[in-house]
Amino acid sequence: MTDRRTEILTGAARVIARQGVRGLRVADLAAEAGVSTALIYYHFKDRAGILRHALAFIGDRADRYTAEGDGAEPGIAPAGPRQLLERTLLLEFQDLPEVRENSTAWGELRAHSVFDPELREDLAAAGAAWAAEVAGHLADLCPKAPPGAVTAAAERLTALLEGLSVRWLSGLLPLRHARGLVREAIGVEVDRLASHPPRPPRPPRPSPPSRID
Amino acid sequence: MTDRRTEILTGAARVIARQGVRGLRVADLAAEAGVSTALIYYHFKDRAGILRHALAFIGDRADRYTAEGDGAEPGIAPAGPRQLLERTLLLEFQDLPEVRENSTAWGELRAHSVFDPELREDLAAAGAAWAAEVAGHLADLCPKAPPGAVTAAAERLTALLEGLSVRWLSGLLPLRHARGLVREAIGVEVDRLASHPPRPPRPPRPSPPSRID
Repeated sequence: MTDRRTEILTGAARVIARQGVRGLRVADLAAEAGVSTALIYYHFKDRAGILRHALAFIGDRADRYTAEGDGAEPGIAPAGPRQLLERTLLLEFQDLPEVRENSTAWGELRAHSVFDPELREDLAAAGAAWAAEVAGHLADLCPKAPPGAVTAAAERLTALLEGLSVRWLSGLLPLRHARGLVREAIGVEVDRLASHPPRPPRPPRPSPPSRID
Repeated sequence: MTDRRTEILTGAARVIARQGVRGLRVADLAAEAGVSTALIYYHFKDRAGILRHALAFIGDRADRYTAEGDGAEPGIAPAGPRQLLERTLLLEFQDLPEVRENSTAWGELRAHSVFDPELREDLAAAGAAWAAEVAGHLADLCPKAPPGAVTAAAERLTALLEGLSVRWLSGLLPLRHARGLVREAIGVEVDRLASHPPRPPRPPRPSPPSRID
């Protein structure tokens, strides 16, 4: 990605996090990124193009700070599936300006899609990729759990994250408490998956009837 | 509440569900409700007053359709705690225009509070009341579970609902699937609470050491 494109998308994430999707005017974005509106239209065609690329850019940034998240220091043994799972799910809850801005912009793009179907397809793809990543870690942790149950648990954990994220960002839920609820939710879902029998237990073979008659 | 106040708040819910909080202009609301802007200011003082009262109005409507929800027909035996719990949590997911409008407006007021702290206190109170209701049903179902675990489960279930609601309203999640995920989440949390020992099991009394020496 060229520097100019990156600057425009960085600016778009900042404007969306500050003013919402409805508040994103191309003139404001141009001022924020220090470029002309013509350059923005040249790179992204129209407002829909800006939003679509901003969504992808924000998703990539989230992937980046997940990978860099706590416990991933160089020289430390690679994390196990439980750590990877916690890291993937707790990445939203870090009190860093970049994370807060990114989560705010992402949540706003998601909330806005209730009113405007434009981003629906991209959001669906991003959500499916995230749930698949979580499901992969869950399957590693609970290899005997049925795939359907793993997928449902991943969908619940990611939806829970989104619900808690809005509460955190709007100041209704302290960060520490949000993280605690996520950790417990992982525990509850993993215990349930681990206790899942791969199939119903086979009934004991009946002994031949004894002839008492 | 006077008819005029009700008409204005009904209009406010409709405008917020259609255009978002940022799209709520008092002139539009006056046109929607068929009243003068002066009457709106007379009843609600300012835009913040409209939003605060709209939030309460939308919350009351949700309470009403929960109470009227499926399974509450007259002449039927009163529902048990599990049914009450499911009803409280599944109310968001009904494909009725009134429910969809109400959920859209509520979700928008919630999402908007990330940008504007004005409604924070009212949203916190409404969220706490809802979580307390869910916790009450959970405690009835699992009377031996520790209160802290019950509260955390109620917080997770209501946050999950909010996350799933945005996905449903934006067309990312079919209604039936959302309802299935909620029912399973209730099962997962209730099973966990039911298996909660009230305190750690007492270690077996040690038998007096046998003197072999």
